[in-house]
Amino acid sequence: MKVENWNEISNKAMQWTKEAGEIILSSFSEERMINFKSNPSDLVTDMDQKTEQFFIEKIKSTYPTHKILGEEGFGDEVTSQEGTLWIIDPIDGTMNFVHQQRNFAISIGIYQDGVGKVGIIYDVVAGELFHCIVGSGAYLNEVALPKLNSVPLSEAVIGLNSTWVTENKRIDAEVLAPLVKAVRGTRSYGSAAIEMAYVASGRLDAYMTLRLSPWDFAAGILLIQEVSGVATNLYGKPIKLLQQNPVFVGKPVLHDEILHHFILKQSADHE
Amino acid sequence: MKVENWNEISNKAMQWTKEAGEIILSSFSEERMINFKSNPSDLVTDMDQKTEQFFIEKIKSTYPTHKILGEEGFGDEVTSQEGTLWIIDPIDGTMNFVHQQRNFAISIGIYQDGVGKVGIIYDVVAGELFHCIVGSGAYLNEVALPKLNSVPLSEAVIGLNSTWVTENKRIDAEVLAPLVKAVRGTRSYGSAAIEMAYVASGRLDAYMTLRLSPWDFAAGILLIQEVSGVATNLYGKPIKLLQQNPVFVGKPVLHDEILHHFILKQSADHE
Repeated sequence: MKVENWNEISNKAMQWTKEAGEIILSSFSEERMINFKSNPSDLVTDMDQKTEQFFIEKIKSTYPTHKILGEEGFGDEVTSQEGTLWIIDPIDGTMNFVHQQRNFAISIGIYQDGVGKVGIIYDVVAGELFHCIVGSGAYLNEVALPKLNSVPLSEAVIGLNSTWVTENKRIDAEVLAPLVKAVRGTRSYGSAAIEMAYVASGRLDAYMTLRLSPWDFAAGILLIQEVSGVATNLYGKPIKLLQQNPVFVGKPVLHDEILHHFILKQSADHE
Repeated sequence: MKVENWNEISNKAMQWTKEAGEIILSSFSEERMINFKSNPSDLVTDMDQKTEQFFIEKIKSTYPTHKILGEEGFGDEVTSQEGTLWIIDPIDGTMNFVHQQRNFAISIGIYQDGVGKVGIIYDVVAGELFHCIVGSGAYLNEVALPKLNSVPLSEAVIGLNSTWVTENKRIDAEVLAPLVKAVRGTRSYGSAAIEMAYVASGRLDAYMTLRLSPWDFAAGILLIQEVSGVATNLYGKPIKLLQQNPVFVGKPVLHDEILHHFILKQSADHE
């Protein structure tokens, strides 16, 4: 295994992230080119593409041996976890970017041979940069994030979109519905990266969603694990790094309680 | 009818709102006293109460004839719409205030003989002050908000909490569920005032919720109407100012389409 200088890599990644944020902010006055992917709710803008290319140029010129997996597909064809891999979402929450010009994030997870090393989520408009070098603690800007303590289910505020409790093609609506009543409240911000950063910083107690790609969760799960949170797929199994997963993250104990008393129980009832 | 100087009243209200915001921000380091109202999700903090009392002192000393209806109940016993009435939520989104120390707002609506005159919503942590003097345009900080144009339903992003599409005591879960699939996306921020300010500023295309009190909607509906948005109860009828209402606000045309093709149609199907 190549010996990498994770402090240096993390610092460069953060610096490029802030620069990319500046470029995005300065683009707000421009007319936006919006394209659609497979359906009208799957958007991509010229800014998504430009930002990914910005990162690729920086990374390739500084770390030519590193591989890049990016949402917009300008990176490498990545089929193995070998080596040092940057997993990048240039704008997570493109729908928010288009509709609100806020509540979107840059997300970067860096892995070596499949093991998480650096996680960065930058809520550009809020100016909140969440980052961690795995094993050295997680930070929001310059402030260390405390370890997560569990909360009782009845006092939990969780990230859960209405999609997953109404008719959809990924899960029986009745599986997660009872959870809505059992918790103190639900929220939905429309950016998985921000929602995972909110779990890492204790603003949400858990978050679940049925279909995330590697660039949506690569940074978030590292941040959450770094503060003793739990990150699994929806059914409590390990997340597979290079494929889509249903993702469920949360505070310890609470994660287990929701998993066993709701998800697995209800899923069995509805099989 | 008494002739009021609405410019002066609006300016004073904004100044007090910013001062109250400062006091709230400076309280973040303090241990919070949290009490529960009727159930564990209905919270109130010492800061809710202090902030309401701050406004009452300012208003009563400057405008002794004005009446005040506040969420925390330190204002007047208001049973009539006569005269000049301040309707105040000192912290809208108390759950967010407690769990996140963000995503809460101060909301102030001022009415004369039941007619809206001034609307103010202040997202304290974001530093966004939305305000209007009815008939003179709406503003976000110093920038005028444009009139709202409609959007097609399939491109709409709406504020809708999971509560209203799962079993609850206020509406059949099946009434709003089809809407989740028909729109581009749903969001839920946990503060009615912020969600209405988001509609007024075009960040959300519509917002609906089943139970709001006067202090939750008094400012928001004025801001929305000021930019040509539509504010009714969930069933398209006028909102009654001094009582709880199910509230539905949105862009013109879109509001009508959701009302007739979803809410009224589905409600009839499920009666």
